[in-house]
Amino acid sequence: MNTFGRNFRCTTFGESHGSALGVVIDGCPPGIPLEASDLQPMMDRRRPGVGPLSSPRAEPDAVELLSGVFLGLTTGAPVCILIRNRDAQPGDYDRLKDVFRPGHADYTYQMKYGIRDHRGGGRSSGRETAARVAAGAVAMKILGLRGITVEGRVEEIHGKTIPCDWEEEIRNAAAEQDSVGGIVEVIARGCPAGLGDPVFGKLDAAIAHALMGIGAVKGVEIGNGFCAARLKGSEQNDQMGEEGFLSNHAGGILGGISNGNEIVARIAVKPTPSIARSQQTVDTEGKVVSVSVQGRHDPCIVPRIVPVAEAMLALVLVDSLLEQEKFTAYRGDLRIRMKK
Amino acid sequence: MNTFGRNFRCTTFGESHGSALGVVIDGCPPGIPLEASDLQPMMDRRRPGVGPLSSPRAEPDAVELLSGVFLGLTTGAPVCILIRNRDAQPGDYDRLKDVFRPGHADYTYQMKYGIRDHRGGGRSSGRETAARVAAGAVAMKILGLRGITVEGRVEEIHGKTIPCDWEEEIRNAAAEQDSVGGIVEVIARGCPAGLGDPVFGKLDAAIAHALMGIGAVKGVEIGNGFCAARLKGSEQNDQMGEEGFLSNHAGGILGGISNGNEIVARIAVKPTPSIARSQQTVDTEGKVVSVSVQGRHDPCIVPRIVPVAEAMLALVLVDSLLEQEKFTAYRGDLRIRMKK
Amino acid sequence: MNTFGRNFRCTTFGESHGSALGVVIDGCPPGIPLEASDLQPMMDRRRPGVGPLSSPRAEPDAVELLSGVFLGLTTGAPVCILIRNRDAQPGDYDRLKDVFRPGHADYTYQMKYGIRDHRGGGRSSGRETAARVAAGAVAMKILGLRGITVEGRVEEIHGKTIPCDWEEEIRNAAAEQDSVGGIVEVIARGCPAGLGDPVFGKLDAAIAHALMGIGAVKGVEIGNGFCAARLKGSEQNDQMGEEGFLSNHAGGILGGISNGNEIVARIAVKPTPSIARSQQTVDTEGKVVSVSVQGRHDPCIVPRIVPVAEAMLALVLVDSLLEQEKFTAYRGDLRIRMKK
Amino acid sequence: MNTFGRNFRCTTFGESHGSALGVVIDGCPPGIPLEASDLQPMMDRRRPGVGPLSSPRAEPDAVELLSGVFLGLTTGAPVCILIRNRDAQPGDYDRLKDVFRPGHADYTYQMKYGIRDHRGGGRSSGRETAARVAAGAVAMKILGLRGITVEGRVEEIHGKTIPCDWEEEIRNAAAEQDSVGGIVEVIARGCPAGLGDPVFGKLDAAIAHALMGIGAVKGVEIGNGFCAARLKGSEQNDQMGEEGFLSNHAGGILGGISNGNEIVARIAVKPTPSIARSQQTVDTEGKVVSVSVQGRHDPCIVPRIVPVAEAMLALVLVDSLLEQEKFTAYRGDLRIRMKK
Repeated sequence: MNTFGRNFRCTTFGESHGSALGVVIDGCPPGIPLEASDLQPMMDRRRPGVGPLSSPRAEPDAVELLSGVFLGLTTGAPVCILIRNRDAQPGDYDRLKDVFRPGHADYTYQMKYGIRDHRGGGRSSGRETAARVAAGAVAMKILGLRGITVEGRVEEIHGKTIPCDWEEEIRNAAAEQDSVGGIVEVIARGCPAGLGDPVFGKLDAAIAHALMGIGAVKGVEIGNGFCAARLKGSEQNDQMGEEGFLSNHAGGILGGISNGNEIVARIAVKPTPSIARSQQTVDTEGKVVSVSVQGRHDPCIVPRIVPVAEAMLALVLVDSLLEQEKFTAYRGDLRIRMKK
Repeated sequence: MNTFGRNFRCTTFGESHGSALGVVIDGCPPGIPLEASDLQPMMDRRRPGVGPLSSPRAEPDAVELLSGVFLGLTTGAPVCILIRNRDAQPGDYDRLKDVFRPGHADYTYQMKYGIRDHRGGGRSSGRETAARVAAGAVAMKILGLRGITVEGRVEEIHGKTIPCDWEEEIRNAAAEQDSVGGIVEVIARGCPAGLGDPVFGKLDAAIAHALMGIGAVKGVEIGNGFCAARLKGSEQNDQMGEEGFLSNHAGGILGGISNGNEIVARIAVKPTPSIARSQQTVDTEGKVVSVSVQGRHDPCIVPRIVPVAEAMLALVLVDSLLEQEKFTAYRGDLRIRMKK
Repeated sequence: MNTFGRNFRCTTFGESHGSALGVVIDGCPPGIPLEASDLQPMMDRRRPGVGPLSSPRAEPDAVELLSGVFLGLTTGAPVCILIRNRDAQPGDYDRLKDVFRPGHADYTYQMKYGIRDHRGGGRSSGRETAARVAAGAVAMKILGLRGITVEGRVEEIHGKTIPCDWEEEIRNAAAEQDSVGGIVEVIARGCPAGLGDPVFGKLDAAIAHALMGIGAVKGVEIGNGFCAARLKGSEQNDQMGEEGFLSNHAGGILGGISNGNEIVARIAVKPTPSIARSQQTVDTEGKVVSVSVQGRHDPCIVPRIVPVAEAMLALVLVDSLLEQEKFTAYRGDLRIRMKK
Repeated sequence: MNTFGRNFRCTTFGESHGSALGVVIDGCPPGIPLEASDLQPMMDRRRPGVGPLSSPRAEPDAVELLSGVFLGLTTGAPVCILIRNRDAQPGDYDRLKDVFRPGHADYTYQMKYGIRDHRGGGRSSGRETAARVAAGAVAMKILGLRGITVEGRVEEIHGKTIPCDWEEEIRNAAAEQDSVGGIVEVIARGCPAGLGDPVFGKLDAAIAHALMGIGAVKGVEIGNGFCAARLKGSEQNDQMGEEGFLSNHAGGILGGISNGNEIVARIAVKPTPSIARSQQTVDTEGKVVSVSVQGRHDPCIVPRIVPVAEAMLALVLVDSLLEQEKFTAYRGDLRIRMKK
């Protein structure tokens, strides 16, 4: 399943060391101003090779808008965005082609498909998220027209709350041929109440699906999250006053539907599984071998996950906005009827 | 969106104080032995009125199999399961019809639809999960044929790890006109490697969606979950030996695909929002009022969520099993080809 | 696949000689006035036992509204409609349980599922359409709020154009222990331009899917249909004047999108396959046998298909209306932008 | 909706005079041998500029395989196929940008989206079918592995049954600045019984949807089609003998499920709406104008629709094959159980 969303449907394609990555967005509303340069800033926040703590793979992640835009406006036709791989080095992975790297999807892809593209993880690589960020940048433009913003930040690296010298944590891990994880928070501001669909289409469930689907994520929480499990009802409930809710323990969602407050989600990002330290694993023949994953890897992927998490939250919100439009006309009818 | 699943598609319907609840399962494989009595034990674990700490609403939750079964076997046609409400007391809610209860979906449903069934939360009530459990019990039968089991347990109540006298925690909260939450763990054993679909159909993302979609859940984690964010790569990675994985920090899922280990998920359950203690809120005219939610409520919903979480995990797994069958024939072709 | 529609999603269930039939409608807009008596007139037009040329099976087809309606208005929650079978006589089919009736789905269900409910065709029976008509009647209410009507009529029976004494054609066929088919036309009036989705969601494609999915239908055409294949471009094209289109050869659809004209579709209905005349077939052991299908059957099903075809067209239109709402807000933005 | 299929999901993108067309296939089974040269022969049968009666637009329709294939085999990851437009001449359409061409989607796209890409019909152009044919060629490879073939042919041009000098019919129409339509038949051979899903996923309904979704198609029939409406039950029913069915009036489908016979469908193709002859229409201001559509158009599109119809039928069949695999394991279980 390489498609995300029911209304704003994003289908991504491409492998880490293939010729290109991309996304087709089907269901994009017409009349949205869009050009390639709109997408680049968000692409640049995710791309590798930009800092001393990031993979040195040199990818400009330049986007090409292949379809769905005419005279600077979306037309309602599918928007295809293409990102060519410019610094693929598939040969780097030759020695890993028969070995299942610990913490990676090598073993599970082999078991699922009976075949796998071993070059840098192929389809399971974090590089796939470039396509998601491109789609997310389009979603952001639409949210912007509605006054909605989405913003993420690193909250913790290896257990150290930000702000702190967390770059040192990462450098230390790298020096030990190891890696570290952390926690990212994403917040949407300006969302109207009413987004989300009851029962199986709850907004929080959609967000959990979206964020847990980012490769390295092992946990998702909304509002008070796991802390809520340790509170009393009188502490967790958000009471209301004339101006609206008096607190936001719920993280902006009640019964799976947005309540007009800030939507707040946090994700747990595991440490990068690619480490230079020697680890025990098996090869495709089942023989025990030791492996050391050298190469161009991030000792901490957390900062680069921020724009990906923003993108996924933006995609959920645009999808929910479009879903909600279906009822707008009928809610109008109703109000008139009820006034009588 | 009241349908769950792409292959084993469960559509639930019904309100807390309407005439009935139910589920239609479309995509149930043919030839599965099924009768109403198969479902009752799991229904009984969820239903109210069975213990001193549970709501006294007396619902037998007896299921009627309306379709899709012939001579004791499923036929491949949709299975409709009906559960009549027997102890609905909609009149209890008359005084709440214009008030938005804190922590409930009253306000958000009103904002979404412009209308709401205020009787016990209507569609947003936890009573809706009776239909999910019925569907989950069918899913369990199918999993059983494949040697897969799903089992949940209460791990924590109000911060106290089980085992402990957690009934006292609940009684204390009730005595204070308050409520408590907790943590539930669900584990699937016997799953083959290969379940789950890359990118947007990851097994962990599907589980997060399924579990976060249970009304009171505010967080989901897989395997080490949020703890993974505080570990190093060398600690989190599961190394492999001749017998398979040497640990299970991943919770049985790598790259979104099951690896053959136990699948382990945990959820944070917030305290029941219905409390007798007085809270401030607004009514449908926007006027500030105080509300005390009297009636038949659980001071702690956590134990009753266990079978619901099991049901949701079972639904995800059956759906993934059916999805994976599509490739089975082709993986076979491939193996033969690669041997040459 | 027992669900129809992407926005107004109708899932039907039930067998011809099981305990009940029904439908769950998910995605029904809130605030639509709805009660059981609204549905009965359309149910009555389809139900058996009402005329000398119809099956004598005595089914009142009384509908029960189980959910989704509160104080006479839909709430946005799923609407479940239940129709109990009152005159099922499953024993009538005992002698046919091992025989594949010609022209029926007996053989194909057995090959597909390895099991089948032989009682009157089980799920493949035309009786399943009762649930579709119930859903269609709800759709009609929504269309009515938008000024759209859907109306069908018998155009031909056994090659004789209506009006003519076509009852005689049917009586003759019955006397010969045979059956006849015919052609039904359905027309939607009052549809706005803009319904339908390009490429794979074309309105005519959706109509073709909906109508060809009625059991006995072997052909579907839109507007001039097969005649268009014998015309020249200058004859088939609908030219435009100040008042709009000067003709309607297209049947109200251009490029898969409604153009504001009447939407016109025609379907070919095959003769009822159940005939008393002896036919050669095989049994479940592959042995050649002869079969004569006695019992309660219509010698001509065409008139009873009219409300089913209306229902299916209404379902397509409501689904398309809801789909189109998603863009309404954005088209508005655009108009303002373009005026500058 | 630019995605076709539930299991073998093809999402097409691109406009007639944009930079590229393409398709992403999600759900393609792993292990299928595939390279670009496999697709070219079928692309060549559809592309323009190859005969004296076809549009002179010079498009090589060379395909680029961007993803999903590794070492000559599909991997289970999405297959993206890109087709660059090489001979786009958008300037040719400048004078038509404010005029709604009769018989085209110009007016309806404008009404739907409030904006349209007027260059050669943009997304509504027949050129979009290049992407479908590419996907269809992949589907053909999979069908080939199962011994299934799909073949189409022109049956009629402007009412003249083939064989006949139908090129003369086309030349005459072109000489009169007019165009002609016709009828295409597509047949699938070698399909197993059991494909197709009851009720709303019937194989014939899926075929009708697929074929009616080709731009110029105004009618679809299966087997005897509209003729069946004029036959008696004893004439239409296919009786069975030891070797299987004794005839194929049903066109290989009973109750919406394949019966093992040849699957036979026919479509009515309207005459090309682009004609040089002057026609009356309106412009975007609602003013009546006359238009003569000059340029690079086919006076008869019927022969070029043959590979498109084959592609669409192939896509339906692969999708149904994958759907059916889900039940294979369970049907096996059942047989063992029933033997006892």
